[in-house]
Amino acid sequence: MAKEKKVEQITDMEQDFAQWYTDICRKAELVEYASVKGFTILRPYGYAIWENMQRILDGEFKKTGHQNVAMPVLIPESLLKKEGELVNGFAPEVAWVTMGGSEELEERLAFRPTSETMFCDHWSRVLHSYRELPMLYNQWCSVIRWEKTTRPFLRSREFWWQEGHTLHETAEEAMAETEQQLNCYADFYEKVLAIPVVRGRKTDKEKFAGAEATYTVECMMKDHKALQGGTSHYFGDKFSRAYDVTFAGRDNKLQYPFQTSWGATTRMIGAVIMAHGDNNGLVLPPQIAPIQLVVVPVAQHKPGVIEGAMALRDRLAAAGYRVSIDTSDNSMGWKCAQYEMKGVPLRVEMGPRDMENGQCVMVRRDNGEKTFVALSELEQKAGELLQAVHDGLYEKARVNLAEHIYPAFSIEEAKALQEEHGGFIKTMWCGEEACELAMKEKAGMSSRCIPFQQEHLADTCACCGKPAKHMVIWGVAY
Amino acid sequence: MAKEKKVEQITDMEQDFAQWYTDICRKAELVEYASVKGFTILRPYGYAIWENMQRILDGEFKKTGHQNVAMPVLIPESLLKKEGELVNGFAPEVAWVTMGGSEELEERLAFRPTSETMFCDHWSRVLHSYRELPMLYNQWCSVIRWEKTTRPFLRSREFWWQEGHTLHETAEEAMAETEQQLNCYADFYEKVLAIPVVRGRKTDKEKFAGAEATYTVECMMKDHKALQGGTSHYFGDKFSRAYDVTFAGRDNKLQYPFQTSWGATTRMIGAVIMAHGDNNGLVLPPQIAPIQLVVVPVAQHKPGVIEGAMALRDRLAAAGYRVSIDTSDNSMGWKCAQYEMKGVPLRVEMGPRDMENGQCVMVRRDNGEKTFVALSELEQKAGELLQAVHDGLYEKARVNLAEHIYPAFSIEEAKALQEEHGGFIKTMWCGEEACELAMKEKAGMSSRCIPFQQEHLADTCACCGKPAKHMVIWGVAY
Repeated sequence: MAKEKKVEQITDMEQDFAQWYTDICRKAELVEYASVKGFTILRPYGYAIWENMQRILDGEFKKTGHQNVAMPVLIPESLLKKEGELVNGFAPEVAWVTMGGSEELEERLAFRPTSETMFCDHWSRVLHSYRELPMLYNQWCSVIRWEKTTRPFLRSREFWWQEGHTLHETAEEAMAETEQQLNCYADFYEKVLAIPVVRGRKTDKEKFAGAEATYTVECMMKDHKALQGGTSHYFGDKFSRAYDVTFAGRDNKLQYPFQTSWGATTRMIGAVIMAHGDNNGLVLPPQIAPIQLVVVPVAQHKPGVIEGAMALRDRLAAAGYRVSIDTSDNSMGWKCAQYEMKGVPLRVEMGPRDMENGQCVMVRRDNGEKTFVALSELEQKAGELLQAVHDGLYEKARVNLAEHIYPAFSIEEAKALQEEHGGFIKTMWCGEEACELAMKEKAGMSSRCIPFQQEHLADTCACCGKPAKHMVIWGVAY
Repeated sequence: MAKEKKVEQITDMEQDFAQWYTDICRKAELVEYASVKGFTILRPYGYAIWENMQRILDGEFKKTGHQNVAMPVLIPESLLKKEGELVNGFAPEVAWVTMGGSEELEERLAFRPTSETMFCDHWSRVLHSYRELPMLYNQWCSVIRWEKTTRPFLRSREFWWQEGHTLHETAEEAMAETEQQLNCYADFYEKVLAIPVVRGRKTDKEKFAGAEATYTVECMMKDHKALQGGTSHYFGDKFSRAYDVTFAGRDNKLQYPFQTSWGATTRMIGAVIMAHGDNNGLVLPPQIAPIQLVVVPVAQHKPGVIEGAMALRDRLAAAGYRVSIDTSDNSMGWKCAQYEMKGVPLRVEMGPRDMENGQCVMVRRDNGEKTFVALSELEQKAGELLQAVHDGLYEKARVNLAEHIYPAFSIEEAKALQEEHGGFIKTMWCGEEACELAMKEKAGMSSRCIPFQQEHLADTCACCGKPAKHMVIWGVAY
């Protein structure tokens, strides 16, 4: 017999949300710190979540005609600097390669912080005619941004992401692509991660360095802070002019194409933790769960129980579910706590009496609800209950978001609401950066986005009283 | 109407094999040079081949219990240097990050040339008990080795690969893993890439820096040069001692685990080009071809032809084939040349008369053979012909290998055979490095491997005349 392992405790989220978050990252074995400061290791369970996210997103990208490529990871400094705003935005965070083997390099090379420059450089050499447009590219890779303070998934010096980069004949097509990809992220959050989002446009102050417009999906975490979920950028022809990307148009004259980029990162795992997790650990939406169901035999020393549990596992696997079984000699209590920590959506229990009755018990991770399931309906019920877990998670997150958006009509009121409730504060805004800076300084909030779904709360800006142009959502963000 | 595009010519392989190779890389749009010297861009078509390779290999790895992870890309110099042989092997080729943002780093960081050190560092912190073994990890990533001369896929400063790293309780288990993964590569080459391999062990001179034993699969290209296809390394407990990786054994005493690593790279794409390509371009084995069948309508201006071709495409897609259709206004000749250049295994032609006869024509890329296929048998015949292309490619490559292995009994004879025929030269060998150096210096060949399938050609070493220990295969390698 094995020594009984201790069930590891995590900090309560009400007591210390930040520590609760870190505890889950470590105890669910998602991530581990590396010996390089600010860098992390994605462990098998964490990486398996990322693989599921990749597979689903990649499938969506391909459905709309995108193709994957691989660009070099190092960018010559001169190339990075051709477009002024981009380099100004990223220069303080770039890691530089200055030596190759024992030789000092003539020109230092940036570890990519983002790859607009490389794509443009490539396109300047391969694009000739409007017939080759659009070019719809994506790459899955890691990037480095030399952040001062780091947290697993949310902010680390190296992170894993996809960066889509596309080139179009017209501004309208590029703008449509920007919107399409933003909606792709929004659908992924809502339909796969079970996290509702607010779709909108970033203010000029908050947009991507070098972009003409940045669209964003903003989510709310359980502590009512905001998390930027994914962004999609429209560049106009700014980069193609800077990098001399041209094509012969339908009129046979040289033209500059229009460009977009869009990215989502391993920070989505952080979003899942903080949107759905609880004091027993991680809670995973079924579509990205590495293990969707775990079969735990009850009284497994009794004859036939393990065989029965294995038959259950085999049927679920044959039906296409990601299923695991635990016949280890750990106690039932330890096993249950362990799979709760790991966020497995459904636990399937079956003991001798269940077998006699031709049934098993399915226990939902999101609300603890137990359902007796006749073995004749096993596969169908598994699917229904997984869907119920997804729906239950989405509904809780939807209520959390809906109940924590507050209108405000002055900076003071916005500040008071944020301090009392947290969440998103919506106000009218004149469009001036000065008012954003005032909100940041006085109420500690940044503008999250100008939502596509506008409301007319008032005629004037909550900050300065001048005529309002937009409704803005403010929040404290990760 | 579009202007007729010119069909691009490539150099004949008999005239200039190296130029023929580069021409295919560029004209089949697999790869493009980057503006960073020695770095390449994997274009959509090249990357799609890599994705197919990844999907199949990754599936095999997972079947045998391996899990993917992601390790940091940067390795502190002190960590890299803990195991002396490894760092001596790789130090001249390391790219160094010395600045993060505007700060000079206290310790320079290596862009990973390989990740044994990172895995060991991680394991030294997370491994506790024999119950957690084996740890069967893999990662897909890019690495940098600062090579002096580079060629697309074969040798570039950055390349994409998978690196498996595993940890075991006993030496026997680690050795079994080393063999299993070598066989995994061999099967992949033979059953997926249609390239026969010679399996064997590297000599001490040629083995991986720091390994106790390196196993390899060696392939022969159409110019009869050798290409190392993939390697699998057994480390014993050398690294775990250097990095202080320990576990509590069954006897509750601290022990050092035994380790393996194994890797295969984008160089496999180079192997496919040089094993199967011809003077019309790339020839792809069906399992990794991004497009397995391309439907090209004949006389497509005639009524109903395009619709018929689309119906064909839809049926093949529904049957699970990767299929494409070309209804552009380019000429039939241009289209055929284009899909030959891209190595599409089967071209499916259908014109008005075929439609009347309820048939189409399938043309094999590997040998130009045409088959009339009744539409009622479309899906089945497509599968059979794709299999025939695979078998045909394998058989040609098998004959090429079998006909270009020559026994030799002296360095002079080995040299003469290599100069006259190229290929693999097999000789007996005493086991001394001096004889390897002599063969290199006098006959220009390195030892490729000590094949697992040994033959007794003679009693004495072909180089020095001392008693022989093994039969070795020599060759000129990429």
